[in-house]
Amino acid sequence: LCGFRNLEAFLLYMACNAVLAGSAAAICAYLAPAAAGSGIPEVKAYLNGVDAHSILAPSTLFVKIIGSILGVSAGFMLGKEGPMVHTGACIAAMLGQGGSRRYGLTWNWIRYFKNDLDRRDLITCGAAAGVTAAFRAPVGGVLFALEEATTWWRSALLWRTFSTTAVSAIVLRSLIEYCRSGNCGLFGKGGLIMFDVSSRVTTYTATDIAAVILLGILGGLLGALFNHFVDRILRRYGVINEKGAPYKILMTVFISLVTSCCSFGLSSLSPCVPCPPELAPGKCPTIGRNGNYKKFWCPAGHYNALASLFFNTNDDAIRNLFSGGTDSEFGVYTLLTFFIGVYTLGLITYGVAVPSGLFIPVILSGASFGRLVGKVFGSGLDTGLFAIVGAASFLGGTMRMTVSVCVILLELTNDLLLLPLIMLVLLVSKTVADCFNKGVYEQIVRMKGLPFLEVHADACMRSLVASDVLSGPVITFSSVERVGSVVNTLRRTGHNGFPVIEEEPFAPAPELCGLVLRSHLIVLLNGRTFTRAPVKTGAAEVFRKLNPFDFAKVGSSGKAMEVDELRLTEEEMDMYVDLHPITNRSPYTVVENMSLAKAAVLFRDLGLRHMCVVPRTPGRPPVLGILTRHDFMPEYIRGLFENVLRE
Amino acid sequence: LCGFRNLEAFLLYMACNAVLAGSAAAICAYLAPAAAGSGIPEVKAYLNGVDAHSILAPSTLFVKIIGSILGVSAGFMLGKEGPMVHTGACIAAMLGQGGSRRYGLTWNWIRYFKNDLDRRDLITCGAAAGVTAAFRAPVGGVLFALEEATTWWRSALLWRTFSTTAVSAIVLRSLIEYCRSGNCGLFGKGGLIMFDVSSRVTTYTATDIAAVILLGILGGLLGALFNHFVDRILRRYGVINEKGAPYKILMTVFISLVTSCCSFGLSSLSPCVPCPPELAPGKCPTIGRNGNYKKFWCPAGHYNALASLFFNTNDDAIRNLFSGGTDSEFGVYTLLTFFIGVYTLGLITYGVAVPSGLFIPVILSGASFGRLVGKVFGSGLDTGLFAIVGAASFLGGTMRMTVSVCVILLELTNDLLLLPLIMLVLLVSKTVADCFNKGVYEQIVRMKGLPFLEVHADACMRSLVASDVLSGPVITFSSVERVGSVVNTLRRTGHNGFPVIEEEPFAPAPELCGLVLRSHLIVLLNGRTFTRAPVKTGAAEVFRKLNPFDFAKVGSSGKAMEVDELRLTEEEMDMYVDLHPITNRSPYTVVENMSLAKAAVLFRDLGLRHMCVVPRTPGRPPVLGILTRHDFMPEYIRGLFENVLRE
Repeated sequence: LCGFRNLEAFLLYMACNAVLAGSAAAICAYLAPAAAGSGIPEVKAYLNGVDAHSILAPSTLFVKIIGSILGVSAGFMLGKEGPMVHTGACIAAMLGQGGSRRYGLTWNWIRYFKNDLDRRDLITCGAAAGVTAAFRAPVGGVLFALEEATTWWRSALLWRTFSTTAVSAIVLRSLIEYCRSGNCGLFGKGGLIMFDVSSRVTTYTATDIAAVILLGILGGLLGALFNHFVDRILRRYGVINEKGAPYKILMTVFISLVTSCCSFGLSSLSPCVPCPPELAPGKCPTIGRNGNYKKFWCPAGHYNALASLFFNTNDDAIRNLFSGGTDSEFGVYTLLTFFIGVYTLGLITYGVAVPSGLFIPVILSGASFGRLVGKVFGSGLDTGLFAIVGAASFLGGTMRMTVSVCVILLELTNDLLLLPLIMLVLLVSKTVADCFNKGVYEQIVRMKGLPFLEVHADACMRSLVASDVLSGPVITFSSVERVGSVVNTLRRTGHNGFPVIEEEPFAPAPELCGLVLRSHLIVLLNGRTFTRAPVKTGAAEVFRKLNPFDFAKVGSSGKAMEVDELRLTEEEMDMYVDLHPITNRSPYTVVENMSLAKAAVLFRDLGLRHMCVVPRTPGRPPVLGILTRHDFMPEYIRGLFENVLRE
Repeated sequence: LCGFRNLEAFLLYMACNAVLAGSAAAICAYLAPAAAGSGIPEVKAYLNGVDAHSILAPSTLFVKIIGSILGVSAGFMLGKEGPMVHTGACIAAMLGQGGSRRYGLTWNWIRYFKNDLDRRDLITCGAAAGVTAAFRAPVGGVLFALEEATTWWRSALLWRTFSTTAVSAIVLRSLIEYCRSGNCGLFGKGGLIMFDVSSRVTTYTATDIAAVILLGILGGLLGALFNHFVDRILRRYGVINEKGAPYKILMTVFISLVTSCCSFGLSSLSPCVPCPPELAPGKCPTIGRNGNYKKFWCPAGHYNALASLFFNTNDDAIRNLFSGGTDSEFGVYTLLTFFIGVYTLGLITYGVAVPSGLFIPVILSGASFGRLVGKVFGSGLDTGLFAIVGAASFLGGTMRMTVSVCVILLELTNDLLLLPLIMLVLLVSKTVADCFNKGVYEQIVRMKGLPFLEVHADACMRSLVASDVLSGPVITFSSVERVGSVVNTLRRTGHNGFPVIEEEPFAPAPELCGLVLRSHLIVLLNGRTFTRAPVKTGAAEVFRKLNPFDFAKVGSSGKAMEVDELRLTEEEMDMYVDLHPITNRSPYTVVENMSLAKAAVLFRDLGLRHMCVVPRTPGRPPVLGILTRHDFMPEYIRGLFENVLRE
């Protein structure tokens, strides 16, 4: 039975997968390396104020969409959900910066969004819309944005994300309605609810609750272990990926071959099982190409259980595991094999150079594990129900989301009576997993070295004061400064913010006038509103030559002017420029002996980028230094703390 | 037919209601006036940092529970949902302060919660649990806490409220399971889902969507009108209520009589309708005392449609309106009469001296209005479905909640396919209503004169600086101060925070040492760690006599020591006390020329109570004044702004 045709099929299957995987890796490695991976950690970091290189650029968007389609088609054990969140964020970023100047797509009226706050809001909405599209879960999308994506939540944002996901849900629904009439070929099967299990009776006893708690503990342990291995494997892969694009492609093809061998080989080794007699006798339902039971060279009236999981789309595999009344469909060994396979493949796949989400591997391994526990326990509950609870426990264990996972699963399964069980299992699994490590997205953010501001200030900060973290002398400008001095300072340093000091003749004694940004300085210099003597020209003079929108922040695909692009003559370099019009006159300041922990709260909660440290007593320079995000990073703080201890 | 027996019944009904209403008003007026009304505005204000008098005291809790039961039984058009939120918050407050010292219920280990942050968290969880209990909506409870209740949201809070509502939901479910077997008499009917309408098909066309948008606009208008009248009526009632407890009781009884006349009278005038033939012929189903169809002196085989709405429990009336496939049950005139009745009764009832929620009147009037619109439009959709959408539009129009209303309705009706429609109608109605006035809870907060910090700083603030709002000279203490001077200052002023100035001989020039709180000063003075000469005694000396927990904030039912209770001798008054151990050495400060709008952001986002204003230039006192919550109130700011303009 497993003769030549089988081998031929295997080789063809493997080759197709390898070609798809290779092309996904190629566009990813050559066009937009930032499109690899889930994208959720980067979006999370962006919303925290860290703009990783070209993470929201149009090229990333393009590669993310195409690469994700190729990657899923290649049969990798990866999800499309994370990439969809990233895609949503990219589209929002493009809208927010008025299209892409580089590709000639611009809308001028969107320039009003050209500030960090509105841009962050838009990207949060984009991420929420991504979740809505991925899981068809509008409320889940809002909660995901709240729980996982954003750092600064405002009540206005609730309203905005909600409107976005409402529109997404309505558009999605209309498209599904349209496709249901057969206009879209294979697309658009299923309603707004992906896995409708609402017909099931759900009364449960104390034993069931004990089983659920056990599942929560195991899910938490396995989830923490998953995070641990993801971290280790990503670090190992990082070394290979750094060698260049060809290595990335080779590794992706290699993992594709391993995946093909695994899914095909394991399915081949799995025995044939007779179809359940309560169905049409002698024939398993297969409903076109998306059927539930896969024959896989089994004789008529039989099916291959493992192939029914491996050789379905991910959605159908999840539906198979979640569906009720099918306790006998998958045996203990089938589930165990599938669980181990999915768990391992999920681990080795994340990190290859294709857009790849973590939701699908985690849900699949959680669901198979849950069904396994349900079967072994022999509880009175349906094993499909255990699969759902198992998926929740794994999601809680790896991603550490609670309310959003709960609502997403609710919207996926439409089974409100399951809610208490899902809540319970999430509570348990998150608590267990939190004892070991951080959530997988936070871990990836940290591994990528992005300066992410944590919610909780490091404990060491309580023993330090603001002046402890200042390093080196502060670079300041006078409120009316010589052009040459500004240009030279900008060339010499990479700082993005400079304190401006009001000096004689404008003030009797030096005092802090405010804070000026590098990008604003360059725009101002480019406007050439210079004077021969140091006098205040005032804002009117500046804005006669420059438009306020010139000072707006450029988008992530656009490019701000650099100081070296300014073509200033020797004569101009000797003239003076009035910095008052572009100075932020009310910067947030802290006194030098302010507790660093309290300064960190101020810095984070107000979403600052620069914070001036001022002296406690008079008779010293009016500003001692500037605190930036890097001054609050745990590694840096801990180093300082040890120095303080040593002294 | 409507003879003597009918009149007798009417009088008995009216008398019963009046007695119940009178007793509710009596306990409320004499024992705990704070228990009147919904309680949600006060909880919202508490979580914003405003501790209204005895709003979370045990007596309020007691009256809230009993009064709410009496009020609902009296047939008032009011809900139990708002009071349940308040009840949850009260229980959380009691737990958070370690029981009630006054009633001898104390747990010592809970003293660790004796700080504002943990107390606010606990009360947020309590409010969420209240919503969960009221609507059996655990996710809705979390979102309600997030959207409506809290001012400062932290991600830790999501996790905490979620755990609370999960436990509530599980306890609720167990109790319902227990009661289903008939152990609780009339209690505990229905499952975790109150109004299960999930069996309905919901495909909708463009016409339906137009009808829904129209419903949203009308709901928004009527909701805004409701808020307007609530405000007017509350102000009128306030005048009567101020005259004393007997007036409160009289007014409550009067409103009860009006309600009885209205419900009984309108029902009597309503014609008898034959039972629908598709049901058991000649007999309408009544399922015990909670039946759907009320006979109300109609001949056999007939029912009184208005009585089926007025003479059911609120839950059953809502279920009647929400249920599908019953298009013919209620006629246009029945719905119109019921809508006008409920809308008016809801308006005149809120504000009487009984615990009364707004959810039920708003949902009932919305549902009847929605059904009415559905009937008049003759849309293809079920009128029950229109009732749900109408309820959503009214909730959006009055309370201006979006995501939480959406999820609560989802959890109430278990109809996920309705979600896009509900989202759409909420978007429309909130947007329309926001053009006219604020949400009903915010309006009540403002009417009660509670100093609530708004999310958005008033526009006038941008034209003012921090020093503009300072009034009068600042009262400061020296870091080692004479006891008599501290006592006299505390007696003379009502301030709760004082800047501490480091002076000679402890510093070469006066400088800001920090901030000290009135409550801490009194505890310190009571510890009597005085010295004859002005020297630093240090923290060790103070904490040898005093326990750190002595400085913890007392609960809302406990009473902090007053300055007059200190019995200090003349000799002690001449001694010195070292304020260093209780001084907050890192108070948040702003420079005098800081924009007031930016200072307001700092004040609100960091949840401060006192903020020091420091001078910009040396050679002046080290602190110019203290900003408190009242300095950021819009009325005060606008007054100042006009002064500035006049100058």
